[in-house]
Amino acid sequence: MEGDLMVLGVWASPFVRRVQMVLDLKGIEYEYREDNDLMNKSPLLLKLNPVHKKVPVLVHHGKPIPESQVIIEYIDEKWTDKPILPLDPYDRAMARFWATYIDEKCLPAFWKAAWVSPPGEEREKACEEAYEVFGKLEAHLKEGDKKFFGGDDIGYVDIVANFLLYWFVLIGEEVTGVRILTEERFPALWECLENFKGSPIAARHLPDKDKLLSFYKSRLAATSSS
Amino acid sequence: MEGDLMVLGVWASPFVRRVQMVLDLKGIEYEYREDNDLMNKSPLLLKLNPVHKKVPVLVHHGKPIPESQVIIEYIDEKWTDKPILPLDPYDRAMARFWATYIDEKCLPAFWKAAWVSPPGEEREKACEEAYEVFGKLEAHLKEGDKKFFGGDDIGYVDIVANFLLYWFVLIGEEVTGVRILTEERFPALWECLENFKGSPIAARHLPDKDKLLSFYKSRLAATSSS
Repeated sequence: MEGDLMVLGVWASPFVRRVQMVLDLKGIEYEYREDNDLMNKSPLLLKLNPVHKKVPVLVHHGKPIPESQVIIEYIDEKWTDKPILPLDPYDRAMARFWATYIDEKCLPAFWKAAWVSPPGEEREKACEEAYEVFGKLEAHLKEGDKKFFGGDDIGYVDIVANFLLYWFVLIGEEVTGVRILTEERFPALWECLENFKGSPIAARHLPDKDKLLSFYKSRLAATSSS
Repeated sequence: MEGDLMVLGVWASPFVRRVQMVLDLKGIEYEYREDNDLMNKSPLLLKLNPVHKKVPVLVHHGKPIPESQVIIEYIDEKWTDKPILPLDPYDRAMARFWATYIDEKCLPAFWKAAWVSPPGEEREKACEEAYEVFGKLEAHLKEGDKKFFGGDDIGYVDIVANFLLYWFVLIGEEVTGVRILTEERFPALWECLENFKGSPIAARHLPDKDKLLSFYKSRLAATSSS
């Protein structure tokens, strides 16, 4: 046990899984606490992350750290063995650039197209925007011509990106029926995701497909009826 | 001259000024190129930042790095003297947390309230949302009870935050007339901004008020008439 280390999370969150995967990759032991009542934020969550009121939160020696990307950088700086971010400053900058792009551009574009927009013209427009956003990621990956975003091994951008891609494909294919990420449209992204899914470390952290689907289907039903 | 180092920027951008201030604080010499035709993106900008097509871009030994926060971390890792981010991993995590909060929460909230929303109920609602967002920053600053976000000296969060605050106050007070950031409402933020403005390093990088005002007034006029 690496001192007093706890992750507050929700099993269905790709952001929480990022943190768990990084701790696993580094071989760091920790306590995990499930905080899965998304409708009523727990007093513990409100205390640990009063600004965003979101999981994951990492608590180390009593000090809370929210936001998955911030947490991963913290872990990588505190436990320097088996680095998650590249070591070279330029490569680190590029990793941060794409990780931010994924959370700030890809995520909202996907959500808008597949979840929020009503069918018809509005959804079509949102899909076009999403294709453009994901197209830049595809082009970047193609240019590198590597097995993973991080090169030959899973790295920071894979951890940030591939969890989301896994969720997106599932939600798009089987929950909302809006298929944005397909093998035909984004072959390089698709291959990278397949490589990721096939790795032992990812397999340990990708949640069960059926369980995840029923979780999101019930959320969609709740959204539609509210 | 620290090798082949160039900043592509626009004089009126707080994001560009962040980078210039960091280079100044560290005493790093660089070439500055103005790229101020915001309507027609220059071929150089499109080449250096094809993803976002935005300044600033730092070019070091021919390699482009976009996005001000990514650039600052790069500079701080490449030239480790006079660190901009705190050295302790927890303090670094908190600095990254608040820097992200400012760009991802405060900036859109301000923009929506002061620039985008039409007067009336919609703007009032946007202002209430902005008060809430800035209120969390105010509470954080009050809790620390320090001269700057970074403590007794200007640090990473000050560089990220205070340029924006300076712009926001100017735009709110004198361009759109929507005053969100006032001394009465956010005394701790206000004091921190005043301390920042009074520092020699900030004074060297805050652009001339009248020039900045006429730049944004003409942009507002262009927006209104389009």
